[in-house]
Amino acid sequence: MPDTDALETLRAALEVFARERDWETFHTPKNLAMALSVEAAELLECFQWLTPEESAAPDAKRRQDIEHEMADVLLYLIRLADRLGVDLYAAARSKIEINRVKYPVERVRGQARKYNEYEDYAQPDDAG
Amino acid sequence: MPDTDALETLRAALEVFARERDWETFHTPKNLAMALSVEAAELLECFQWLTPEESAAPDAKRRQDIEHEMADVLLYLIRLADRLGVDLYAAARSKIEINRVKYPVERVRGQARKYNEYEDYAQPDDAG
Amino acid sequence: MPDTDALETLRAALEVFARERDWETFHTPKNLAMALSVEAAELLECFQWLTPEESAAPDAKRRQDIEHEMADVLLYLIRLADRLGVDLYAAARSKIEINRVKYPVERVRGQARKYNEYEDYAQPDDAG
Amino acid sequence: MPDTDALETLRAALEVFARERDWETFHTPKNLAMALSVEAAELLECFQWLTPEESAAPDAKRRQDIEHEMADVLLYLIRLADRLGVDLYAAARSKIEINRVKYPVERVRGQARKYNEYEDYAQPDDAG
Repeated sequence: MPDTDALETLRAALEVFARERDWETFHTPKNLAMALSVEAAELLECFQWLTPEESAAPDAKRRQDIEHEMADVLLYLIRLADRLGVDLYAAARSKIEINRVKYPVERVRGQARKYNEYEDYAQPDDAG
Repeated sequence: MPDTDALETLRAALEVFARERDWETFHTPKNLAMALSVEAAELLECFQWLTPEESAAPDAKRRQDIEHEMADVLLYLIRLADRLGVDLYAAARSKIEINRVKYPVERVRGQARKYNEYEDYAQPDDAG
Repeated sequence: MPDTDALETLRAALEVFARERDWETFHTPKNLAMALSVEAAELLECFQWLTPEESAAPDAKRRQDIEHEMADVLLYLIRLADRLGVDLYAAARSKIEINRVKYPVERVRGQARKYNEYEDYAQPDDAG
Repeated sequence: MPDTDALETLRAALEVFARERDWETFHTPKNLAMALSVEAAELLECFQWLTPEESAAPDAKRRQDIEHEMADVLLYLIRLADRLGVDLYAAARSKIEINRVKYPVERVRGQARKYNEYEDYAQPDDAG
């Protein structure tokens, strides 16, 4: 990946991929969001019955599965962004800034309970 | 974003973000995969009752929500990749090549029915 | 199903099923909620690329898949309820009453736009 | 709930609920499967950052949230079954029998590793 950005390279590749197959009809934002959600669940499934510790050290086969599912999530996300004209990188930068304000270091640092409570409190906004 | 890559910039920012808050304990791969899956569903919720056509032209408020949820998905995905040492870009490139073989143009082009059947064929045991 | 209730019959069968296999260890509420979420996505996958109309008339093979996935969702839900001591039927009755107040007939009746807006408005609570 | 079955009582109540609001149009199987999947994720969110042990003993507020989300999952599942003419109880009974064959006691009993491997074996193409 020399000059251009990773996200843009993938976006362009996916656009060609869908056009070659005449899949634009199926790629409505609603359908793409469904597909993304299905892939996220397939990723989750890789960790389903593992302990937290086991989840940090998957064996080679599981690791391969995990990488494929993570790739699927990213690909559908980039494709959805393309169909809606969303700048993913800008959106992500902006969301980090929002989170910085929402979870100030001095308030949430190193406190499991606080973290959970804050999540609870934060949920309405998260769903917004 | 001048010299460095978007994904790497975001990865580094999230690493600092979590370290400052002592959230590494919570950020097991299993928990991050759950969080990613929850955010994917919140994204899906934005499109839930829309027709396919409406989903392609969300109003300004909904569009803002969609961008935030897409950002959340990307951020958790990058964070998960970092915790597992996965190169997201390489994984995505490799998955596109796999899909190229799995869905050859001459076989699936412009055929809604074929597309559905192929999906079925590709994930025959999913429903088991 | 003669004298006893469907939900109780299934609950009892699942309890025996898990005990016989020594699966209680894996069946923490957190893991069961994950499993349920994965099954819900597998159900969603059955409808993924269908039009709304097609989704109402699945062919025989797809219909079989759908029934299996719906069963999986119900089974994990009942198992989760059992582990937490939740009375599913009472919870469902109570939620219908809450929804009756939340979505008054005269306000939401037959209005697609209102429905969507209301959903939007309702989201913060839904996530609560 | 004296004479009739819990699932049938809820089904009938939901049918009236949707008809009173003219929501049948929105309640395509595809949309209902999406809604169910979103509710399953909201349920998952209740357990997101908890340890396995904490997830088994939620405090009163969280428990209330969990019950509401479980109810939402059940209600959408029953509504979907109604729209497709699926007998949920029969489907669940039949799925338990399938699982009995798929996970024989002597093979999977009390073995975490076997359990995981078997899951792998059972859904080999999921990660594809």
